[in-house]
Amino acid sequence: MAFLLEIHPTPYTMKTHPFDKAVKLTVQDDGSWLGHTSAAYANMVGPFGGVTAAQAIKAVLMHPQLLGEPISLTVNFAAALTDGPYVVQARAARTNRSTQHWIVEMLQFGQTVLTATVVTAQRRETWSLDEETMPACPLPDQVPLPKVEAPMEFVKRYEQRPIVGGLPEVWDASGHSSLSQLWVRDNPPRPLDFVSLTAIADIFFPRVFIRRSTHVPVGTVSMTVYFHANGQQLTDTGTGYLLGQARAQAFRNGYFDQTSQLWNEAGILLVTTHQVVYYKE
Amino acid sequence: MAFLLEIHPTPYTMKTHPFDKAVKLTVQDDGSWLGHTSAAYANMVGPFGGVTAAQAIKAVLMHPQLLGEPISLTVNFAAALTDGPYVVQARAARTNRSTQHWIVEMLQFGQTVLTATVVTAQRRETWSLDEETMPACPLPDQVPLPKVEAPMEFVKRYEQRPIVGGLPEVWDASGHSSLSQLWVRDNPPRPLDFVSLTAIADIFFPRVFIRRSTHVPVGTVSMTVYFHANGQQLTDTGTGYLLGQARAQAFRNGYFDQTSQLWNEAGILLVTTHQVVYYKE
Repeated sequence: MAFLLEIHPTPYTMKTHPFDKAVKLTVQDDGSWLGHTSAAYANMVGPFGGVTAAQAIKAVLMHPQLLGEPISLTVNFAAALTDGPYVVQARAARTNRSTQHWIVEMLQFGQTVLTATVVTAQRRETWSLDEETMPACPLPDQVPLPKVEAPMEFVKRYEQRPIVGGLPEVWDASGHSSLSQLWVRDNPPRPLDFVSLTAIADIFFPRVFIRRSTHVPVGTVSMTVYFHANGQQLTDTGTGYLLGQARAQAFRNGYFDQTSQLWNEAGILLVTTHQVVYYKE
Repeated sequence: MAFLLEIHPTPYTMKTHPFDKAVKLTVQDDGSWLGHTSAAYANMVGPFGGVTAAQAIKAVLMHPQLLGEPISLTVNFAAALTDGPYVVQARAARTNRSTQHWIVEMLQFGQTVLTATVVTAQRRETWSLDEETMPACPLPDQVPLPKVEAPMEFVKRYEQRPIVGGLPEVWDASGHSSLSQLWVRDNPPRPLDFVSLTAIADIFFPRVFIRRSTHVPVGTVSMTVYFHANGQQLTDTGTGYLLGQARAQAFRNGYFDQTSQLWNEAGILLVTTHQVVYYKE
């Protein structure tokens, strides 16, 4: 199932980039948002969860009552989305002087398919320090595109250059570590923002594939993203690569966790992110 | 501010243990729950957030529609609780064949003070593996009680034996790592369950204190707990100690993260947990 990744050399404009089409939301009379799954970001079944998560935070970021920038997001994938339209409801449950707490639900056919909470805040400059520094890695142009790629459509929307822990070339149960490191960015390149960064936080292949070199059915149940970067740092990152690192801590009776980081090329830790994933067998 | 921790030798019964009094919930006519802050678990201002988080998950675990056991919990602390009563609302937003998605809100005076989401599931036995193994540590009885303790009342409700990264003895800005390891259990000892484990997930002192040896105002904004243990593993853990480990990954413009693990004495990873915390200066 190997194929060559087609790299688009010319950045698209924000209006025509497939990601912007995929996360388009239209406001409805009752203040909720109408979105639609995108064939360009299709997963095995339904859409790539990263784009679904991106929709949840976008509904908050577009809300007229928004205060500040995202600090944390938790999305819970309550049911597989059906290809087609969906509604996103975002409600500011509490607004303080400098922080705001949001509850988000996504619905299809009147049924909840996603729940989420978001915290936004106005940040002030303080003493700051990255304790988890970027691991030593070869530069993006020194890392070849993968020999093996997953056939899902959404994978083609990301330029991924795996350093360690890429998809197994043979599924022979030979894995011994769940650690992955890779360079990643939108394909075609697109200037980074909180919405696209949320999607990229979900880019890592399921840790159980890497650890076991075995293919089993999986699905993310819950994902949390902590945003350490502010909007200016995302603007500064532009269309550059992000270094992603992911590993599992425990696989137990049908659920494993994943703990991940994303740095920009300048070595700034943009997000730390965690998820818990269902697996069968 | 040093003092001797008073260790109660006799386990209390579940009805009389201060933790059970603190997390008591009474069902109301509309299906919501009524709780009350506990002086025994007071923090500097308001109650210990771990107990507040424990209330959020307890409202789900006591709910007549509950399916399965907790997989993940995210609580967002929307406002400081006032000492006194509060209402907890728990709603099953989606119930599938083996998983369930909950939205929880806690209110005081009609205002939201906490939002939360919970995922519960019926687990099946599968291939399992702890990749993050318990670090080599001295046994609990080899680790003395701390020379320095925080004066907050809730701290006395936990027997904590710091191995590395305890509270600084002097606040001289000499810190160089945010890593803490400690043995911890309820004081007096109490058989572990999902509710008390949720509270213990919030036991770690703010990482900014440890890293900087500097005292600044702080407050947890959001906490996520992934439950790897099932109920039987908690029963097997009983009143034993838990090994807790916590460290920060980034401190940035008013918010830092914390990533933590809790193992039981048998070395089973019970939970992995994360939080993002506000800090001033």
